[in-house]
Amino acid sequence: MQPNGILTLLSDFGLSDVYVGVMKGAISQINPNLSVIDLTHQIAPQNIAAARFCLMNAYDYFPSGTVHVAVVDPGVGSTRRAIALEFAQGYLVGPDNGLFSGVLSQSSAISAVELTNSQYWRTPAPSTTFHGRDIFAPVGAHLANGVALSQLGEQIDINTLVQLDLAQVRVTPLGIYGCVQYIDGFGNLITNIPASYVQERNWHIVASALNIPGGKSYSDVIAGSAVSLIGSHGYIEIAISCGNACSQLQIGLGAEVQVLIG
Amino acid sequence: MQPNGILTLLSDFGLSDVYVGVMKGAISQINPNLSVIDLTHQIAPQNIAAARFCLMNAYDYFPSGTVHVAVVDPGVGSTRRAIALEFAQGYLVGPDNGLFSGVLSQSSAISAVELTNSQYWRTPAPSTTFHGRDIFAPVGAHLANGVALSQLGEQIDINTLVQLDLAQVRVTPLGIYGCVQYIDGFGNLITNIPASYVQERNWHIVASALNIPGGKSYSDVIAGSAVSLIGSHGYIEIAISCGNACSQLQIGLGAEVQVLIG
Amino acid sequence: MQPNGILTLLSDFGLSDVYVGVMKGAISQINPNLSVIDLTHQIAPQNIAAARFCLMNAYDYFPSGTVHVAVVDPGVGSTRRAIALEFAQGYLVGPDNGLFSGVLSQSSAISAVELTNSQYWRTPAPSTTFHGRDIFAPVGAHLANGVALSQLGEQIDINTLVQLDLAQVRVTPLGIYGCVQYIDGFGNLITNIPASYVQERNWHIVASALNIPGGKSYSDVIAGSAVSLIGSHGYIEIAISCGNACSQLQIGLGAEVQVLIG
Repeated sequence: MQPNGILTLLSDFGLSDVYVGVMKGAISQINPNLSVIDLTHQIAPQNIAAARFCLMNAYDYFPSGTVHVAVVDPGVGSTRRAIALEFAQGYLVGPDNGLFSGVLSQSSAISAVELTNSQYWRTPAPSTTFHGRDIFAPVGAHLANGVALSQLGEQIDINTLVQLDLAQVRVTPLGIYGCVQYIDGFGNLITNIPASYVQERNWHIVASALNIPGGKSYSDVIAGSAVSLIGSHGYIEIAISCGNACSQLQIGLGAEVQVLIG
Repeated sequence: MQPNGILTLLSDFGLSDVYVGVMKGAISQINPNLSVIDLTHQIAPQNIAAARFCLMNAYDYFPSGTVHVAVVDPGVGSTRRAIALEFAQGYLVGPDNGLFSGVLSQSSAISAVELTNSQYWRTPAPSTTFHGRDIFAPVGAHLANGVALSQLGEQIDINTLVQLDLAQVRVTPLGIYGCVQYIDGFGNLITNIPASYVQERNWHIVASALNIPGGKSYSDVIAGSAVSLIGSHGYIEIAISCGNACSQLQIGLGAEVQVLIG
Repeated sequence: MQPNGILTLLSDFGLSDVYVGVMKGAISQINPNLSVIDLTHQIAPQNIAAARFCLMNAYDYFPSGTVHVAVVDPGVGSTRRAIALEFAQGYLVGPDNGLFSGVLSQSSAISAVELTNSQYWRTPAPSTTFHGRDIFAPVGAHLANGVALSQLGEQIDINTLVQLDLAQVRVTPLGIYGCVQYIDGFGNLITNIPASYVQERNWHIVASALNIPGGKSYSDVIAGSAVSLIGSHGYIEIAISCGNACSQLQIGLGAEVQVLIG
């Protein structure tokens, strides 16, 4: 696939240090004309599952040929593999720790390499703590520049890529069971139950012993009331109109939810 | 007016999720060569008044023909109108909830449309919760691309645009009365009293029973002291040199202030 | 030196207001085609030492000819000088308060001017509180546009530039003594002891009466354990694997550390 000159960055580096700025510097040293777009740098530290969710919900909004560099990397400096891969809509670059498994559940990998060719790193002797700057951002820039994936290292079997095991949705006579898989910055509780389970039907959701009506939008209930709706990610979510569902309902990541139809 | 290829974004989406990144993706799918500049995404959730103030104080620093997309939208999914409008310096795109009324108090609208033409949305079936991604960012990108305002939907009467009522400044024999209209990230208390009321005169300000001298800059008083000055927004503000006026003086949004001349 | 069209921005303005967006607007009014990269805007308010450290660790990752605009400026509105200077890799623009002394300890100044020529400011009557918008960003944009340094104001003696005094590393028979010079967003404690003091040797570090092994990477110890390593900045740092060394070890900025070899 032809790269389109756009790189996205996602990390848990936060914005209070110069780590993100320095990654952009490393990219600009390779090609200052690449277009760099931040997805977010405020993934909770080392939370691979949150990074996986965020990337899975973002990649499809970018043009074909975009390179996504994602660095949530608790294993940096260990033997975890550094990888790059091609999939139907573009390229992914980062550690092989499962953070790409969400994207790849929707759009499978075409080919993958381990980043063993230090010619495309910033330096043949990278730091042991900041592969974002020394390996991933430079490799992403070279990919966006048109360097072939196969040049970046040794090909690896796409079936060996690390998967992140997530709770499964269960459909039972008592309803559809799932869990809260992500909490966004508004405190909205995003479950792992896709919209397809309830589309065009009446439903409500039970969470933390609360019965919450299934509505259509935040403004379908009065301010301060809980509502369940099909969120913009395509999953059922629980929100409080003009409020924060996470803190007000005291429902956290992983909490079980039950959807009832009718 | 000719668009200049620059879009600004302002929202209350925060930076911990991929919402902002996804809006930029939606723009890049329409034209990856547009220049996108963040104003801020950390407006307090659903605080239309703060968004109004921020946009009013930012638009004039951009070149003529800039498109400003602003999304602080507690009514998303309700019947509130989605609008775009042209004014003397550029274009505004967002919900019709008063957030543009600050800009328009300084530079009036030339024409406005309701965004009813789904051809310029990301999809004819937008989510009920994320019009920033599905309607406003795409419409902004099309405007910046040169699509005529009139193509985006039905013309509406600019006199029907929602206004945000703000406290008025009152001039009395006892002084000039106003209030704190915005608190910035340093804790500076920005009043609604424009500089023109005190220019070239000696003055001080009374707030929360404190008598605060009117000075010229933060460094005119010793560190830790309160000072009132003409802030960079053009309004009288109260600051603490090397400190945080909001938390240290315990003065909040809406607090009444009194300016005394001489 | 030829400017390369890239400007970086570093400040303590935070991201909750439009201050940063407005600086970018001021730049776009001069030349919308300049490439603007944020280093960070979340330097602790008025912390010149942190800004000095961050800029010193970022500049070298940008192409030759980059203009770095840095605004951590507690003396804004006082008689502190506003300056611009050329050094071997590019240009620096900001207040003369020591924030450039880190960069200049590695790569000395070639020539410097005080910004006295208001022709290159946004307005000949700048605010007394926001020189980032009114002076530094516009001057940076003009420099990036190719305006000669000598046009910006009167030449000043580079030996008169304000230095920031930092604790020195002391080598004694009992070990190498230094201190914590910066704490990053992960809570990693970055000392002022360069890697060269321990390279290729066995070492450990004593901080707050704790004996912490000198390792190679975060993953060399089990999660929750303290490790000392050569950080990506090139200094010895103290981290907790998958944790926050600052809060968990209760070690703060300036705390003394002792490195023992062997």
